[in-house]
Amino acid sequence: MGTKMKVGVVGATGMVGQNYVRLLSGHPWFEVMHLAASPRSAGKRYQDAVAGRWHMPVDIPEEVRQMRVGDASAVDEAARRCSLVFSAVEMDKQAVASLEEQYAAAGVAVVSNNSAHRHTEDVPVVIPEINPGHLDVLPEQRKRRGWNRGFIVVKPNCSIQSYMLPVYALLAAGHAVSSLVVTTLQALSGAGYPGPSALDMIDNTIPYISGEEEKSEIEPRKILGSIRDGRFVLDDAISISAHCNRVAVSDGHTACVSLKFLGQKPGQEDVLSIWRRFRSLPQELGLPSTPSQPLVYRDEIDRPQPRKDRDAGGGMTVTVGRLRDCNVLDYRFVGLHHNTVRGAAGGSILIAELLKSRGCIG
Amino acid sequence: MGTKMKVGVVGATGMVGQNYVRLLSGHPWFEVMHLAASPRSAGKRYQDAVAGRWHMPVDIPEEVRQMRVGDASAVDEAARRCSLVFSAVEMDKQAVASLEEQYAAAGVAVVSNNSAHRHTEDVPVVIPEINPGHLDVLPEQRKRRGWNRGFIVVKPNCSIQSYMLPVYALLAAGHAVSSLVVTTLQALSGAGYPGPSALDMIDNTIPYISGEEEKSEIEPRKILGSIRDGRFVLDDAISISAHCNRVAVSDGHTACVSLKFLGQKPGQEDVLSIWRRFRSLPQELGLPSTPSQPLVYRDEIDRPQPRKDRDAGGGMTVTVGRLRDCNVLDYRFVGLHHNTVRGAAGGSILIAELLKSRGCIG
Amino acid sequence: MGTKMKVGVVGATGMVGQNYVRLLSGHPWFEVMHLAASPRSAGKRYQDAVAGRWHMPVDIPEEVRQMRVGDASAVDEAARRCSLVFSAVEMDKQAVASLEEQYAAAGVAVVSNNSAHRHTEDVPVVIPEINPGHLDVLPEQRKRRGWNRGFIVVKPNCSIQSYMLPVYALLAAGHAVSSLVVTTLQALSGAGYPGPSALDMIDNTIPYISGEEEKSEIEPRKILGSIRDGRFVLDDAISISAHCNRVAVSDGHTACVSLKFLGQKPGQEDVLSIWRRFRSLPQELGLPSTPSQPLVYRDEIDRPQPRKDRDAGGGMTVTVGRLRDCNVLDYRFVGLHHNTVRGAAGGSILIAELLKSRGCIG
Amino acid sequence: MGTKMKVGVVGATGMVGQNYVRLLSGHPWFEVMHLAASPRSAGKRYQDAVAGRWHMPVDIPEEVRQMRVGDASAVDEAARRCSLVFSAVEMDKQAVASLEEQYAAAGVAVVSNNSAHRHTEDVPVVIPEINPGHLDVLPEQRKRRGWNRGFIVVKPNCSIQSYMLPVYALLAAGHAVSSLVVTTLQALSGAGYPGPSALDMIDNTIPYISGEEEKSEIEPRKILGSIRDGRFVLDDAISISAHCNRVAVSDGHTACVSLKFLGQKPGQEDVLSIWRRFRSLPQELGLPSTPSQPLVYRDEIDRPQPRKDRDAGGGMTVTVGRLRDCNVLDYRFVGLHHNTVRGAAGGSILIAELLKSRGCIG
Repeated sequence: MGTKMKVGVVGATGMVGQNYVRLLSGHPWFEVMHLAASPRSAGKRYQDAVAGRWHMPVDIPEEVRQMRVGDASAVDEAARRCSLVFSAVEMDKQAVASLEEQYAAAGVAVVSNNSAHRHTEDVPVVIPEINPGHLDVLPEQRKRRGWNRGFIVVKPNCSIQSYMLPVYALLAAGHAVSSLVVTTLQALSGAGYPGPSALDMIDNTIPYISGEEEKSEIEPRKILGSIRDGRFVLDDAISISAHCNRVAVSDGHTACVSLKFLGQKPGQEDVLSIWRRFRSLPQELGLPSTPSQPLVYRDEIDRPQPRKDRDAGGGMTVTVGRLRDCNVLDYRFVGLHHNTVRGAAGGSILIAELLKSRGCIG
Repeated sequence: MGTKMKVGVVGATGMVGQNYVRLLSGHPWFEVMHLAASPRSAGKRYQDAVAGRWHMPVDIPEEVRQMRVGDASAVDEAARRCSLVFSAVEMDKQAVASLEEQYAAAGVAVVSNNSAHRHTEDVPVVIPEINPGHLDVLPEQRKRRGWNRGFIVVKPNCSIQSYMLPVYALLAAGHAVSSLVVTTLQALSGAGYPGPSALDMIDNTIPYISGEEEKSEIEPRKILGSIRDGRFVLDDAISISAHCNRVAVSDGHTACVSLKFLGQKPGQEDVLSIWRRFRSLPQELGLPSTPSQPLVYRDEIDRPQPRKDRDAGGGMTVTVGRLRDCNVLDYRFVGLHHNTVRGAAGGSILIAELLKSRGCIG
Repeated sequence: MGTKMKVGVVGATGMVGQNYVRLLSGHPWFEVMHLAASPRSAGKRYQDAVAGRWHMPVDIPEEVRQMRVGDASAVDEAARRCSLVFSAVEMDKQAVASLEEQYAAAGVAVVSNNSAHRHTEDVPVVIPEINPGHLDVLPEQRKRRGWNRGFIVVKPNCSIQSYMLPVYALLAAGHAVSSLVVTTLQALSGAGYPGPSALDMIDNTIPYISGEEEKSEIEPRKILGSIRDGRFVLDDAISISAHCNRVAVSDGHTACVSLKFLGQKPGQEDVLSIWRRFRSLPQELGLPSTPSQPLVYRDEIDRPQPRKDRDAGGGMTVTVGRLRDCNVLDYRFVGLHHNTVRGAAGGSILIAELLKSRGCIG
Repeated sequence: MGTKMKVGVVGATGMVGQNYVRLLSGHPWFEVMHLAASPRSAGKRYQDAVAGRWHMPVDIPEEVRQMRVGDASAVDEAARRCSLVFSAVEMDKQAVASLEEQYAAAGVAVVSNNSAHRHTEDVPVVIPEINPGHLDVLPEQRKRRGWNRGFIVVKPNCSIQSYMLPVYALLAAGHAVSSLVVTTLQALSGAGYPGPSALDMIDNTIPYISGEEEKSEIEPRKILGSIRDGRFVLDDAISISAHCNRVAVSDGHTACVSLKFLGQKPGQEDVLSIWRRFRSLPQELGLPSTPSQPLVYRDEIDRPQPRKDRDAGGGMTVTVGRLRDCNVLDYRFVGLHHNTVRGAAGGSILIAELLKSRGCIG
């Protein structure tokens, strides 16, 4: 146990924080030594702090039940206890950005679920299968900001994984994509807790999620972008148009995608073969949270479906189906991923594993 | 009462048939004189034939409760009782096509909800606001087939009204549309009863509806098409790519639409103004089932929503919202209509009203 | 129009308030002249005050869209504009109780939806079909409190109407009931807006509603109770045990009831006949909101159901079904009513109609 | 592997059958050697036979994917391959009863999920924690029917486990219960697949499940009954009155229970202590499917809930909560169990484990 890396969760009582706590329980590399939250929870035992609002499908892990919750703003306390924190705080953007910088300045590696730093030009937004190389910016990030050991890495918005993995697999195989029209059917848990009112979701869908379309259109371009002078430059070759809907599903975001290639379109069998063979750095490195197959293509005509496919690969696999020609662009397909695992806490833990595996931390 | 036109409903016990019965109750122009169904129901009183499977939100109308249900294949009986039938039979396509022809041959006008004749080259597929002129083919249809007074007109699939009305409004204003990428979130009632299992729909969505995408892509091109030598020729100027999903909503199909114009795109204010001013023949004629506004644009950022907007205009109004630029095509918007009213029985009754108003019947 | 009585809605922007506004639109006896809410809404036009949170199935009535919302605490302003207010304020109990007394002191009749005064010993809790006679306490209420024209009447909790009407019908026919075991399946709208989180209600039920069981057990005993020295004495003859569940239904509370009679049990046919013939004072007086039949018994084995029966009688009819012997008590049955109509705003409006009809107001 | 007992599943393609297949995968004592179904499926590979209708949350277990499905009526083939079959056939009662007898006559032990033999007077209906002693009737069952090695044991209806375990724990502690009023909120999966239509369950509940109340009232009395002359005599001391509702929950039956003791009621703390300490034969024997705690009492005021508690103890634990006084009988509480695990396939596998542990088979 002594050899595990010590980590913390800041914003540990919210829904994303609970997911971190759940997924880190029994993790082979990381050990939770610190949980922090707002002053309201600070000082309480974790089980008391989440009493009546523990939303995970399993009970609170034994090892954290009695742990005293720290104050999220007590950065030095965190720095004494752990070398990396997962940030899941829910405050206004400015406050989150500043708090995460304080952690980094105190020497703590920050892997964030929050959108506050996604547009910061020297902060990488990472999906480990797609742009692990973006971590190369970290030394410059530290140097510019005068940080010794700390740094900030961010996980992208939870709406894009179900199409960015299949699209990246095609790019990596030499088939650049020029445009995507994406309509998402997004799960309730993406809005945190309590999220939408049951009265609004029963017998209904809502064709709007605040800020979601903008994030879905810009973040992929940063992930596919390049580093110039220690700063990220958005990819210009791809245009994305997103329609984001909220539907009455607990977990699992679905994306209906039409895409166009920059050059000639590959054959349908080629696309399937590319997806089925797709493996990337996390698989090569054998990172603990990576599924053996990051992409699974299902042949059934009516898949993927949230209830049947969201838990594939422990929630870390993106399930794809219904590849067919598009009458307007080149191809259509449907992608699905578990938004609170692959799209949130699980995706961040995979980043942390990548960081550790590459020697960026501890 | 004696001056009302006598109509019948064939397939009166199914879900679409029940909607006809409900919507025709108290109709100012039509009076239901005949209800027919499969041999299993024939001979029973209507209230007994639908006992345990009446799914309408109101009780069975008094005036049909005691009516004896006829056999759908007893065409002559129907011809004696009424001059127009609404066809809502559920059998295999070949059988439906043939049965509807028998009614027409017997001198009965047939307005059908079924897809059997949608591809028949001399049968018009009509949305009264869009292609009332397609009824001009009826004399040739009769002549070719040797029918005296009968004919067949068909209502299109229930998945297309929420985008075809706003798209047509633009066409009619001189802005031809070249391509549409449409993702639908379709209600359960579109599948009839019993339709999808509750076990499949709880906490789930299904990214596939059998035959729906093909219908959504071809039928609009017939509706926008032209008549050459008494036969319909599909419109070639427009390409449609449809992604059809089933969601846990009782009534109300939503469509997320990206569209591209053939020529220059009109300004956003122009589009809104065109939609808001849009009126067509049914409004000019003051047909009983037509809403005062066939299109309503809602300014709220999160509308249209099935529960809140499906009943607009008595279920006959298409509600549109969220007009905004598209990063890939020209514009994006969301449309919604009531699939069993505007998209099925109500749309057919509006056709019948148009037929009567133009002197094609009775 | 000039002869209509002028009424107001205090707490007009919340969900119950919206229901009042909706149900009072076009009311033959009452005209809404005043809408009041919290300081946050005060001064705004009603349509702006409820923008983004209008939850009714119809649009905001034209006649109140532009009405300026007053401050709920501006009692004199209300008193100048109307002689009766419907109270739907949502504040802490003490504050509601005090505010309602201020309205009464200012000469305004208060019909309240709130529970604050339900246990006040000189305030009647009224279901017009059951205890219209309890209004006789009002002169003493006024006298004791030194009010000239104002008074307070309260509508009971929304959980009890579906069994209290059928049980009262039996009492009124001479069959006193000694005990009731009631399990309710209660709709989301009973909790107001936003109410339960969609994440808590999807694929789930919750076996607890705060305060609901206590209200369900005590309020019926006040309604069935007597007046002694101008104060209400609870009925002692009946014991009620309630199990209250929240289920994923928008509107419509279901109650599964086992009941025991004080004396000999009447025959099953007698019970059905009593229910079917049950009429009471509101029906005799022809009050505008009363349904022709306050109780409807449905013979179908699987009724009542929320979606199919909640709107019976415009939401004012209680639907009963499944009468059968009970192996433990005497009989079992299922009752259902629309919780935001009969159980809330509609029930209060019926009280106001009763007050007017009896000359207690205006 | 060779030492595992060979078992089969008859009716392996239906929903209960799929649950057997899923739960038996990797079982430490049993190995599935035979899968049988209707002639329609016979001859196909299992994965083909269930294609498009595999409803389990995990994929089809590898070891049965390629297994050829036999014909359920080919009893001798089953007898050659296995010594025990789990019966999950869905046919009319008479046919099931006869088929199960044929298996028994062929020397196969039958553990049935079907209700066909639940009222047969020499067939035990078993919940292993409650009436393991009822297996003592098996030698007489065999003798009377002339069976050498085969016999029939039946699992009770899935609606009763959530109250029968807590009630039995009280009985076993010396507190006999005289009456129960039980209202259930039952999950969709209890109806098999496809079960209720989504259109019937959205925004709705149904207060009736065919045959369910009768089963819920009689089967407990057989389980608590005694054996006289090799025949079961129903317990007379307990009366049960059941109200069964279908709700929009995938898995997990909830029961709201009021109960009365024959003698003096034990104190509330005594009841809690009895439930918390309750262990029975399966726990003592350490049967593989038994949870360490058959009953778990939760202190939270709003538990048990289907989504949060159904998977307790791998779906084999009954979760109880909300113990409180009843105003009519003695106590009230809420119980919940996983209807397709504890209430169906899991409960049957536990019976088979008990049989093996006691030497009744293999």
